[in-house]
Order: sequence, then C-alpha cells, then structure tokens
Amino acid sequence: MTITPGPLLQSVNNPEDLKKIPMEKLHEFCEELRQFIIDVVSVHGGHFAASLGVVELTAALHYVYNTPYDQLVWDVGHQAYGHKIITGRKDSFETNRKYGGLSGFPKRAESEYDTFGVGHSSTSISAALGMAMAAKYKGEKDRKVVAVIGDGSMTAGMAFEAMNHAGVANTDMLVILNDNGIGIDPNVGALKEYLTDITISPTYNKIKDDVWNALGKLPVGKRFTRAMAHKLTEGIKGMVSSSANLFEALKLRYFGPIDGHNISKLVDTLNDLKDIPGPKLLHIITTKGKGYALAEKDQTKWHAPGLFDKVTGEIYKKKFDTPQPPKYQDVFGKTIIELAKKNDKIFGVTPAMPSGSSLKYMMEEMPDRAFDVGICEQHAATLSAGMATQGLRVYCNIYSTFMQRAYDQVVHDIAIQKLPVVLCLDRAGLVGDDGPTHHGCYDIAYFRCIPNMIISSPMNEAELRNMMYTAQLESTNLPFVIRYPRGEGMMAEWQTPMEALEIGKGRKLKGGQDIAILSFGHPGNFAAAAIRSVKQEGIDPAHYDIRFVKPLDEALLHEALSTYPKIITVEDGTVVGGLGSAILEFMADHGYKNDIRILGIPDRIVEHGSPKELYRECGYDAEGIATAVREMAGVKVTVF
Amino acid sequence: MTITPGPLLQSVNNPEDLKKIPMEKLHEFCEELRQFIIDVVSVHGGHFAASLGVVELTAALHYVYNTPYDQLVWDVGHQAYGHKIITGRKDSFETNRKYGGLSGFPKRAESEYDTFGVGHSSTSISAALGMAMAAKYKGEKDRKVVAVIGDGSMTAGMAFEAMNHAGVANTDMLVILNDNGIGIDPNVGALKEYLTDITISPTYNKIKDDVWNALGKLPVGKRFTRAMAHKLTEGIKGMVSSSANLFEALKLRYFGPIDGHNISKLVDTLNDLKDIPGPKLLHIITTKGKGYALAEKDQTKWHAPGLFDKVTGEIYKKKFDTPQPPKYQDVFGKTIIELAKKNDKIFGVTPAMPSGSSLKYMMEEMPDRAFDVGICEQHAATLSAGMATQGLRVYCNIYSTFMQRAYDQVVHDIAIQKLPVVLCLDRAGLVGDDGPTHHGCYDIAYFRCIPNMIISSPMNEAELRNMMYTAQLESTNLPFVIRYPRGEGMMAEWQTPMEALEIGKGRKLKGGQDIAILSFGHPGNFAAAAIRSVKQEGIDPAHYDIRFVKPLDEALLHEALSTYPKIITVEDGTVVGGLGSAILEFMADHGYKNDIRILGIPDRIVEHGSPKELYRECGYDAEGIATAVREMAGVKVTVF
Repeated sequence: MTITPGPLLQSVNNPEDLKKIPMEKLHEFCEELRQFIIDVVSVHGGHFAASLGVVELTAALHYVYNTPYDQLVWDVGHQAYGHKIITGRKDSFETNRKYGGLSGFPKRAESEYDTFGVGHSSTSISAALGMAMAAKYKGEKDRKVVAVIGDGSMTAGMAFEAMNHAGVANTDMLVILNDNGIGIDPNVGALKEYLTDITISPTYNKIKDDVWNALGKLPVGKRFTRAMAHKLTEGIKGMVSSSANLFEALKLRYFGPIDGHNISKLVDTLNDLKDIPGPKLLHIITTKGKGYALAEKDQTKWHAPGLFDKVTGEIYKKKFDTPQPPKYQDVFGKTIIELAKKNDKIFGVTPAMPSGSSLKYMMEEMPDRAFDVGICEQHAATLSAGMATQGLRVYCNIYSTFMQRAYDQVVHDIAIQKLPVVLCLDRAGLVGDDGPTHHGCYDIAYFRCIPNMIISSPMNEAELRNMMYTAQLESTNLPFVIRYPRGEGMMAEWQTPMEALEIGKGRKLKGGQDIAILSFGHPGNFAAAAIRSVKQEGIDPAHYDIRFVKPLDEALLHEALSTYPKIITVEDGTVVGGLGSAILEFMADHGYKNDIRILGIPDRIVEHGSPKELYRECGYDAEGIATAVREMAGVKVTVF
Repeated sequence: MTITPGPLLQSVNNPEDLKKIPMEKLHEFCEELRQFIIDVVSVHGGHFAASLGVVELTAALHYVYNTPYDQLVWDVGHQAYGHKIITGRKDSFETNRKYGGLSGFPKRAESEYDTFGVGHSSTSISAALGMAMAAKYKGEKDRKVVAVIGDGSMTAGMAFEAMNHAGVANTDMLVILNDNGIGIDPNVGALKEYLTDITISPTYNKIKDDVWNALGKLPVGKRFTRAMAHKLTEGIKGMVSSSANLFEALKLRYFGPIDGHNISKLVDTLNDLKDIPGPKLLHIITTKGKGYALAEKDQTKWHAPGLFDKVTGEIYKKKFDTPQPPKYQDVFGKTIIELAKKNDKIFGVTPAMPSGSSLKYMMEEMPDRAFDVGICEQHAATLSAGMATQGLRVYCNIYSTFMQRAYDQVVHDIAIQKLPVVLCLDRAGLVGDDGPTHHGCYDIAYFRCIPNMIISSPMNEAELRNMMYTAQLESTNLPFVIRYPRGEGMMAEWQTPMEALEIGKGRKLKGGQDIAILSFGHPGNFAAAAIRSVKQEGIDPAHYDIRFVKPLDEALLHEALSTYPKIITVEDGTVVGGLGSAILEFMADHGYKNDIRILGIPDRIVEHGSPKELYRECGYDAEGIATAVREMAGVKVTVF
C-alpha cells in the first residue's frame, strides 16, 4: 500500500522546497506532515508520539535555518521522523527501521542533514557545542548550530556538563528545550518540578511577555543588525537575570516558555533568536502525541505502539490459540514483586524505563520500594551502591546499552567495594529495530574484565527467576549481573517455584559425541534447535548451558574440554572478549588445545533489522549454529 | 622519625574524644591537626592542600555529628586526611599510601567511619542519598547523612543527576558544597562563575545575613524541636526562594555561603541545620592549602607536592648526574604543540587534568586550541566527536580510570560513527600510590570489544611521538587510542623525528628460540630486561612489540606463532579480555595450538603501593617475566 502525502508535503523534497511555502500555509503543511507520520507509522511501526509532538518545531527549524549548512542536532532521535521526511527521505520513509532500510534515528551515514548520530539521550548539547566551536574557529560566522533536547534528556548529567561548558564557551549555539513532561515514561525529579514552576509562575510569565513584547517591536522575520541584536539582548538579559533561573545560572540566556505548536510564533522566535549572539536556550512547551488524541491521552503506550488502526486506534496484537511465553521483562517485573514480598530488603531502581523494564508493576504495588530516578544511569548505580552499604538489596534494572553510561560507577562504587547490587541488564544482545546505538553487544566483555563480578544469563524464564532468587540471598555478597534479551522467553508456564542456584555452576543439558556446544543465556535455545536439526544427519553434539560466564564452572569446563575435542561457544554478545574468550583463557590456563569456534556478534557495527534477521546475519541463529556444527564435524579431529 | 601531634590531638583517638574538647579550644585543636598533616605529608608524601582546606570542616563535622552512626561521605577523598586522623588512624597515618599501609582515600574496608570508598569525583551525593533513603525506610529517624563535595566535583554530571533526585526524595540529607574554586587545577565553567556570583552578590549576602540572624535567635547548639525547625525553615525558604538559585531550582534548600575556616560558625551552623528536615545544601567557602602559605599561593603545585622541607617549602627532587627520560605526560604535552603548529586541525581537550596530563603547555601556548572542560569526561568525549564531524582532530586526554566515565560516549558517539578522535589514555596500567580506584587496569579490555577502534601503546617516547603523529594523519580515519603509563619513559634523548606508523603493524625486536614474548606498551621494557637476565642461563626468547592490540598485526602473529611453540604475552592491564585474550582469539581463528602464558594484572583488586612493588606483586616486572620464561623453557614442547 502506497501512502500518499498531502499536496504541500508532496511538493517538499528538501528544506529548500519547504522554504517556498508561504508562511500562512505552514500550518497546513504541518498538518500534512503529521498525517503522513500517522499514516506511515500505523502501517509500518516505529516511534510515534515523539515525532507528532515536534511537527511544528521541525518545520520551523528547516524553514528558518539554512540546513544542512546550519546544523541541527536532535537529541535521542525518536522525534526526528518529520526531519527525515523533510530532508529527502519521504519516499523511503516506509522502510524506516526495516532491515536494510532507513534507521529509526538520525544517522550521519544516511544524510548530510543528520549531523550527529543519536539514540542514547543527552548527547546533543555536547555535540552541537563541538560543531559551534569548530565553526567559530574556522571563522564561519554565519553558520548556526541548534540542539533540540527534551526535558527528560535534560536530567542526564551529560546535558548539565555540556551546559556548564556552553555557558562560558562563547559560541552562538541555541539549545531548544522541548518540554513535554515525558520521555518514554513521565519524567521525574527536581528539574521537572522546576520546569513546571517556571512555566506556570506569574513572574516568569511576566518576563516572558516582556521579552516577547520587546521582540515583537521588531519587524517579523527580518534579520537584526548586529547592533540591534546586542541592544535587545542586553535588555532581555536584564529582565531575565533579575529572577535568575537555572539556565541563566549556567550562563545560557533563557527565552520562553512558548507554545511549541504555534508555528508562526516558532518561526518568528527562531528568526529573532538566530542573530542573537552567545549561548542561549529557548524553552518550548509541546504535547507528545499532539494531533492524535489517543496518543495525547496515553503517551507512554503510544511512544512506540507497534502497528495500529489509525482510525479506531486499535493496536494490533498477534493472536494465538495457545498460551505464549511471556516477555523476560514481565517475568522480571512480576518476580521482583514476589521476592520483595518475602524479603523486605529488596528494592527496585530504574533510570527512566519503568514501562520498558516492567518495574512499573512494583512501582505501582510497592511505591516506597521501587522508583524511577530519571535518565540517570550513573546516579542509579551509585545510589544502589549507597543503599547496599545499608544492607538493602537493590535490583537496578538498566538496559545493556545504557549500562555503558554507568560503567565507571559499577567499577568504582560497586565492584571495587564488593557491594551486592543486582544489576539487571535488560535488552542484552541484539535488540532489533533500534539498531547499533541500542544493541547490547558489549556487556559480557566490559563486565567480565572487572574483578568481583558475578555475571549470569538465563536460558529461559525459570532460570531468570532462579537467578533473581539467588541474587537476593544473604549468602550472595558480590555484584550480581543478570543479562537477558528483549522479548519473549520460552515457557508459557513460567511461574515455576524458585530455587537457589550455586553461583558459578552451569548445567549439562545433554551429552553427545565429538562436539560440545557451550551456550550462554537465551541463545542456548538456538543451540538446542540446531542440535535437533543436525541429529537427523547423525551428528550429536553435547550441550552445556554455561549460566555464569563469571565465575566459570571449572568442573563443567574440565568435563567438556576433556570429553569433546571440538567446542562451539554461543553467546548474544561480541566475540571479542566475551564467553568465547573466557573459555579460551580457561583453556590456556589449563593447557587444553581443543578446536574451538566462537559464535556471537561479530566485531563490526551490526545495523538494524528484526532480531531474527540479525541473528541470521551474525550466524548464531539455529541455522548458523547448525552450519558451524556441520563444518566442525567435517574437520578431522586433532590429537590433543 | 616519629612525628608527635600537639597535646589536644594527642588526646583524640576518635570522635568521642574530640567531643570532649570544649568549644573554645576547638580552634587550637584545628591548628594542631593542620600541623600534624603538614608534618606527616612533608616527610611521607601524599595529597596535601585539600586536607588543609577542610581542617575546620572535618573537626566541626565530627564534633557535631554522631559518627559513625551518622554517616559522612567525602567526595573524591583527597581531603579526608583529617578525617582519618580523627577516626582512629592517627598512629598509622605515617603508612598512608604506602604498600600495605593506609589508603590515600576513604575506604570501607579500612574503617567504619569510611562509609563509602571514593577516589573518583562526584559520587558522594548519590551514595549519601542511598544511605539516607535506607535510613528513612528503616525508620532510623535520628540517623543523619552528610555528603561533602567540592565545587570542582559539582561540575560532573553525576552530581547533577543526584541532586535532581535528592531534591524530590524527601530525606534529611545535607550536602556541603566545599567551594574553594579549585580541584587539582583551577575550576572552569559556568558553575564556577555562578558560585562566584552568588558569593559576592549583595542580594545573596543580604539573604545569608537574614538567614543567619534568624538562626542566631535560637540557642546555639541546642536541638530544635520539630515545630521550631519547621517554622524556621519555612521562614528561610521564603527568604531564599525569593531569589531562587541553582540549588533551590533543584529543590535543595540553600544555606550560605559561610566562611569554612570559622570553626565556631561551622559548629553552630551544623548544629542548626542538623534538625532541619528535607534535602539541603550548605555552601562554605574555604581556601585550599589553608595555613601553609606556599600552598595557598600555588594550589596546583601543592595539591600533592611529594616530599618537602616544611620550613623552607623546598620540594625535594631527585638529582641525577645524567639526563633522565622525561615523563610520558611531558612528551605528550610537548609533542601535541609540535604537531599542532604544523596541523591547524589539531585541538587538545582535557577534563580537569591540565597539569596531570601536561596539556597545560598547549593551553598556555595555544589557548584557543586547547582547553579544560571541567570534571566532565562524558562531555569531553562527545564534544570531541562533535568537533571531529567538522574535520578537526581532537586529542582528548583522559586518564584510563576516568575514561570509564565516558565509556558510553566513546561507543555511541565516537566508535559507531567512526569519528577520528584521538583518545590519549594517560595513567594506563597500575598507577601506584593512588590504588584501586585509580589503576587503569581495564581499558584494553573495555575498548578492545568495541568495533572500529584503533588501540595502540608506546614502548618508549619515540613510539609515543610516532603514534601521536600517525593519529593526526588525514588517512587515519578511525578512533585512535594511545595508552601510556604514569611516569618516566626510557629515552633521555626523546625529541626524535616523528614518522608515520602503519596502523596495525607491530615490530619484531629480536628473534630467539622456542619462546616468543609478545608485549604491549611500556612493559615491553620489562620483557627486554627479562630477556637480558635469562640470556646468561642460555634461554633466548624472541621479542615482539605488538604496538597495536587492535587491529592486530596478523603477519607478525603468523610469524611468531608458527615459529615459536611457546608464547608469553605481557601487558599492563587485566589478563581478562586484554592482549592475551586477543592473541588467544587469533589463535582460535587460525587453529594455532601454542602453549601460552598471559602476564598482566590479575583478576582481582590490586591495592596501592609503588608501581615497582605492584608490578612485582602482579608478576610482570622483569623478574616475574624472567620466571615465566624459565618455567616455560622447562616445559616439554608439545607438537602442534
């Protein structure tokens, strides 16, 4: 089905075309852009509500600025669909997030309009400042740089670090704070309250009006002379700093708040601000999901709803005749409540992912023991460490890719101090559509090198429950990592009774001949399928579920390595420094010389696609493993 | 030489003893404590100026609070010598930072008064909040938690993340902002300017006076009733929020600034604040190096001056008859200027380590092309990436241990985008006296698993220069890591002409028999010494300098692995996932079955001591390598 854009949008293939639309028609253009996003996303999926919320901002930015010479940096990038559609990707937009298609995020390799690849939050101000400093150094005085960042992203420390520098770096950069009160889940923390305060406070609104009245005296859309701009901004500065706000404290001139859905006001304002020198911040108020009533009403649900009927708002769900396995996320979310009811030391912490991680269930049921700290992985980890010093057992749930943000805190505050924090690494391994910025490829390697860590991964729901149970035992007194993938597990009947696992103890799933497969976590199921498929060819590999990549099960490894001359390791992580390397290190220590083949994520950036497509590409789906088994079976066994 | 404390200090072995000193004598006690620090550090070395600056604060905190039940968290910990001396470690203080002696930082394993181990900056508010939340949950209403953090540490995003949460978490935590305008080097950024503004602003001083007058009406040192406290704080809140400041914006009640060297005012203030509920921040102004005139005058020099004559202020330096090799740091600092003079795209960035990294030379000579961004590793990395998108070549110099803070930014903003940022990892490997929080053990492992990275390490000064030269070539278009240790290199005549290295090309230093040593970076010199020492025993190993652990020199490895049945790898990094594992992975890929021994930092926390002592302990000093060579030479060669 081809989706036809409205007539104005049809005429726009790049920002130059957009600039030809008369100001009074821009509103219409925005409606068409919004409708196009609804039309495409309802049928093809993707992030939805964020882009609807910045339709006007997107149009205004490309209308006012000379992109791509002027540089826009979109924070996170969930909201950049309108930007992609305006900048030459309207026709290919239906391939968004599909294997081989457009990336769901801005990406440098995809377009010159995508000045900086994003996906993780709060990088935009740093990146934009780098660009602005480069422009200044190169004498490109006419080149403008704009960072667009949400209020959620503002809670991450990195944004603060960048503002601390931007405030004194003396470039003309503009930061646009897109304040909609929500990231994926509603925002939390003091900053959110502060932004509400300044938005509703009469003092601020008075200042705002003064500022805009002052700006209003100038001809709309006309560029200031340098002298005019200076005079005006000095005036504004005087007005605003008299009630010094957070951003003014950091030496960014603060403008706003203004309505981010008023396209003409946005265009006027951006035109006015464009020539005001120095670092500045424009605070705009938008509604996530704007223009699609259901999305406005339940913003979390409509962040990335999957496919839906755009008319009725029905979100399509696959229907099955039999009970299906639950998502690992939900097993986590339900199991932590079960455990917490019996152990009053258990807490749950998430940095801004209550829905994604399913910690929301505990937050609802035990609000004093489970909370969201905002997009603050660093703080989440060290807060958990602080709580652990007092005997509490915190399950700190962070996506594998975002755990990279708390790496130092895990080393310095948790591992060196041997504090028994439970680090639940959600979305470990290849995540699928979100692509390279979100794949959790590195955690096995980056945590395995840290002393004192226990690193586990469940092959199914029962295992996840047992690992979660084991992690909270009094006798477990080291940092305990549990990594599991995004999505469904294997057991429809998942509510198994929990039992303690021996830490560093794997399990033998089956014996065999000649070849042993050592798998870690969920891909063990792919290995099991591979074993079934080669069986009919008379090949019969043994299979061990490693369970703990640290500490290793030495007895199990001695058994496997001395019984089977050929070894295949399988993991949902990079082949550099991961499970495979752990086995190699063990072999080197003990003088084993088995043939070994390491399957996992190759040492290159893996793009987006469905997990199935990506597992296949990386060669560790059932078929890939079966191929490796066949190849190994064909190799003459060396004496060792 | 035994150092005798003054009479009051002699009487104090713990905070209980301190509390027996009458208020009017506390000033005297502080002078004795200050003198004791001067006496010990001048003779035994260590961090100096920071602890002198908080003598009064330290005494006041232990005087007022019921430590260790009340919990103090010192940020970074350079300033905690007074705390250690008061809390039972006066007699052992001469062992500070020595092998087997006291740690230079607070450390949980050392004392119950050390509530949280530190070393890296900006963790204190998160940790303290965790403790305060635990106390609240456990109903320990009388337990107080105080975080002491410098204005330098406040610039790191993590502190902001913690405040964003603390402001709404509703615990009684107190944050003390120790504002002295300097970390190791003078602080930079908008926050520093802001703190100066509010310290000198008449409005703020008016409010301050109002607050203290209000407090002054209450009996000094007497606990408030709950009702009194509430009434007072509501009054204060009214006064302060009327000129809403940065901390108030984050919902922390702001008090101060007050003179942090006025012990009686500190004691009174802390007594008053102790019972004010809710999250609050006390801003105190101190002078780093207070009481030692030279240190007050040159605070950077006296941060950790080494041994000195406390009377004359002469800092002792070893004297040599012949020219000595320079520090790698200085080679970096001088060479970047040399390169930048010829290549106008080169920039230098440091997060708060201009002196330590020696980037200060370039900052002095080319102030528009080299700068300090504050304790902001995350921002430093992404800023560098932003600049790289504009064709600039940034040498971003971050200590290996602090690079952990920018791990996600390197993955997400630099590596995935293949941006040619040069990451200079100073103080890679075991750093010595600073101990576990500062050892740069993990960088080889944590970067090796990331695609697109070039990871190099120089064996001497000439190699460092060549790597720096190679990193800035137009043809070098990937992230380029250069890791080098703290301290001296090998070449007194270090100003060698620079030449391009082929990326991923190692070098054969010598051929040999039976055994090959593959070394990475500076420890190659230990290997060379080991080879010299076993030569007289008739053992003659070959020696290769790997130079690049990524990409590996495949030709070199094929040569080494097919010529020498026994391999020893040597690196100044963890043996888990590092060079040794890289070689094992290569061997597995190509079917090599050599015997292999991996030398490096073991998979456990290595404590502090001199580098020499630690290299020995870890078995990769010359003697350790020689032992490994001998052991391997004695092993019967297996056929492969």
